Amino acid sequence: MTKTLPLSDHSQKFASPVSTAFLDRLAQVLASRQILLTKAQREAYAWDNTGIRAVPDCVVLVENREQVVGVLRLCNDMDVPVIPRGAGTGNVGGALASFGGLVISTQRMNKIVEIASDDRLVVVEPGVVNGELQTALSSYGLFWPPDPSSSKSCTIGGNIAMCAAGPGAVRYGVTRDWVLGLQAVLADGTVINTGGRTSKGVVGYDMTRLLIGSEGTLAVVTQATLKLAPKPTARRLSRVVFSSVAAATKAVAKLMTTASPPSAIEFLDGASLNLLRQESDLLIPDDGRAMLLLEVAGGKDDIANQAQEVSQCVALFSPLEQTTAVGSEEAEEVWAARYALSPILKKMAPKRINEDVVVPVSKLSLLIEGLEDIAADINIPIINFGHAGNGNIHVNLLVDPDDPVIMAKVKPALARIFKLVLKLDGSLSGEHGVGTQKREYIEWEVGRESLLLQRSIKTVFDPKGIMNPGKIFPNM
Amino acid sequence: MTKTLPLSDHSQKFASPVSTAFLDRLAQVLASRQILLTKAQREAYAWDNTGIRAVPDCVVLVENREQVVGVLRLCNDMDVPVIPRGAGTGNVGGALASFGGLVISTQRMNKIVEIASDDRLVVVEPGVVNGELQTALSSYGLFWPPDPSSSKSCTIGGNIAMCAAGPGAVRYGVTRDWVLGLQAVLADGTVINTGGRTSKGVVGYDMTRLLIGSEGTLAVVTQATLKLAPKPTARRLSRVVFSSVAAATKAVAKLMTTASPPSAIEFLDGASLNLLRQESDLLIPDDGRAMLLLEVAGGKDDIANQAQEVSQCVALFSPLEQTTAVGSEEAEEVWAARYALSPILKKMAPKRINEDVVVPVSKLSLLIEGLEDIAADINIPIINFGHAGNGNIHVNLLVDPDDPVIMAKVKPALARIFKLVLKLDGSLSGEHGVGTQKREYIEWEVGRESLLLQRSIKTVFDPKGIMNPGKIFPNM
Repeated sequence: MTKTLPLSDHSQKFASPVSTAFLDRLAQVLASRQILLTKAQREAYAWDNTGIRAVPDCVVLVENREQVVGVLRLCNDMDVPVIPRGAGTGNVGGALASFGGLVISTQRMNKIVEIASDDRLVVVEPGVVNGELQTALSSYGLFWPPDPSSSKSCTIGGNIAMCAAGPGAVRYGVTRDWVLGLQAVLADGTVINTGGRTSKGVVGYDMTRLLIGSEGTLAVVTQATLKLAPKPTARRLSRVVFSSVAAATKAVAKLMTTASPPSAIEFLDGASLNLLRQESDLLIPDDGRAMLLLEVAGGKDDIANQAQEVSQCVALFSPLEQTTAVGSEEAEEVWAARYALSPILKKMAPKRINEDVVVPVSKLSLLIEGLEDIAADINIPIINFGHAGNGNIHVNLLVDPDDPVIMAKVKPALARIFKLVLKLDGSLSGEHGVGTQKREYIEWEVGRESLLLQRSIKTVFDPKGIMNPGKIFPNM
Repeated sequence: MTKTLPLSDHSQKFASPVSTAFLDRLAQVLASRQILLTKAQREAYAWDNTGIRAVPDCVVLVENREQVVGVLRLCNDMDVPVIPRGAGTGNVGGALASFGGLVISTQRMNKIVEIASDDRLVVVEPGVVNGELQTALSSYGLFWPPDPSSSKSCTIGGNIAMCAAGPGAVRYGVTRDWVLGLQAVLADGTVINTGGRTSKGVVGYDMTRLLIGSEGTLAVVTQATLKLAPKPTARRLSRVVFSSVAAATKAVAKLMTTASPPSAIEFLDGASLNLLRQESDLLIPDDGRAMLLLEVAGGKDDIANQAQEVSQCVALFSPLEQTTAVGSEEAEEVWAARYALSPILKKMAPKRINEDVVVPVSKLSLLIEGLEDIAADINIPIINFGHAGNGNIHVNLLVDPDDPVIMAKVKPALARIFKLVLKLDGSLSGEHGVGTQKREYIEWEVGRESLLLQRSIKTVFDPKGIMNPGKIFPNM
């Protein structure tokens, strides 16, 4: 939110990871090259995608499970906070040492342990990069569906910690749908295994899904068994422009109830189109107020049929223009426009606020109208685009965090946005998570009783509270 | 297993639900017609699909959430065990008052609260019958994918408690993949809401999936928001006979890596085929040792293509015979043969033991071979069939529980079966769960550390341990 972290009692009760006593014992677990202590070294782990900087007191680069066990046991023993970190591409401060402590980077645990194509699964260490995994799988005709926009750099461990997703979620679901089993280390060094290698299994509680999306507050994942899907051999992308948001969102609802919905349904609002008119070569009709990017995916034989069905469905909602990219180059140009939005916004407002709220598909139109009202009221541009098939919209407030007049308006505006989303039966985050950035709002969504229950569950895993303190949970 | 329940300390520490003090207070929560106390009334809730009988001390028929809150608060206050129960179709004793206590039946909470077809979701009370929900949804062109064989009578609440599944899981996944949110009441009467109405959401821990499959040990579900799928408009079923299990299971592995795997992949072993030869009119080649039932589902336009692709893939594994039922009547005949197996087995061995183990698809052949060895060693027929696309096999030991010589061999044989399954990287249950029947084996699969952690999580939800005591967890 406001780039100023709320004060937290978490910063008080813990010990420093740079005492001589701690470092002496740490040197028994790790080689000195794995322990980063200089300011320059630590600053390389001080950032994520929020724009906030939080320099950790110490960074360790673990290389195997035994080292994770050793580091956690030591930290637990000496009350040192541990912040698990993948590639640092998160959007809510989850991987930041916001209240000090030791960052445990799993980036060097980057082995693909086993590809079992007959069983449609892969076993990986947490530091494997999402995009590199996809490359390794492609010769088997398989892929791992979670596709966050940071896939070229984000790690599987980070994907699991945050329950990551992307445009493909509309067809394939999110990270929690594509993990069969985990190996994880608890705060006291205990190793647990969850799930397994089968696509079904109901023995005991669903510990796998309890860890997925827990943002490093319960355990450090040291190995994951991922479920794979057959990779579509053909894709086709359509760009459809509408004269109103309502028409576009009605088309989305209709598409989602057809027999085979598109594999991606991306939405861009009027403000996004204005940006693209200014900043890209894309030709967009003047009266266009909303755009959908609709991708179908499948086999070479059925792709034309699928595209035609989508086109016929969309035609019911009187689009201004409907074009289909047949070749992959053309398609890449269209995707490029969608993916250009984030960098354009970053250039215009380097510290923009990016919320990823989600509402039921039938409420998308009301959401966008409400956001337009709020933008007009506070006179701050709000650009909205995202994964409309899931009702998941990225709401971008173009603010200058150094302007106190603007920033005074932002916090109440965010509260209005979140209240609007919850009134529309939505959720405050579809894929980014809570971290430090939404923890003061989480109670609005899940309720106090559930939040207290969740905090008690955390205490079962982590009695001393050393695991990523100050994330997810507000001071209560 | 052996139909004799292990002694449990759970039977000792609780109070009776039929004391005057308890019944006086219960009468303030429920009308007298909702409280069943006569032996005849209670016996109607004494059974499930295990063949075990366990007569509860008291049965209450709750009609709304407030009554669930009232009953749980009272039971928690007075240390009375509570056994949540749907339709009693479970296979592991989960809904039985195995150690005495009060059965809380949710069958009268059977309202479909809302069908929101634009958002592809439905809101139901827990007592709604799975099959009745499907009927209500069919006019919207939607369905709820979990399809246990008991779908005509089992309830959504039971499906959620056990994370139920059926043949469709190979394409659609299991109950945990089709629930968006829950409303549930904890032991002390606290009401929590989990998840929501959106297909994405990462705010806080995944409490929805923690409750799914928890077998009534954490909370009573009072409302569920279910995700729906577009209902295929056409189906086609093939019956393929092989001369060896290995050929059939290799075909399964291959089918699972094709671009669009079948919507059902059911397997029948040689012993199952022998039974069908004796007990049905189905003509099966004499040298047939394994059969697959392969269903494709989709739109009317692509169904023939899909069936052809499946047929071509299967042909690589030299089937003895491959027939495709074109009309739905023909298909029903083939399914009828598959579904006739359970009643045939029930007739032959009324108290047969039915385990639903699961292994990775590539290990199916080794599993069946191992099971054949065990059957030969102990000279007890073992019939194996099930959801091969998930590696989920129903292992049926045809035993007479009144024959002490046979029963003495069963327990070690089950232990051998479970050890074989775990050696093949499998799970002890794909869809039936643990209940009382597998609790002494659960530690073999999940490990002591995870089991202790899970028991601590239960204690967070249910500090006094009144929720379905003696289920899932062994005496530790």
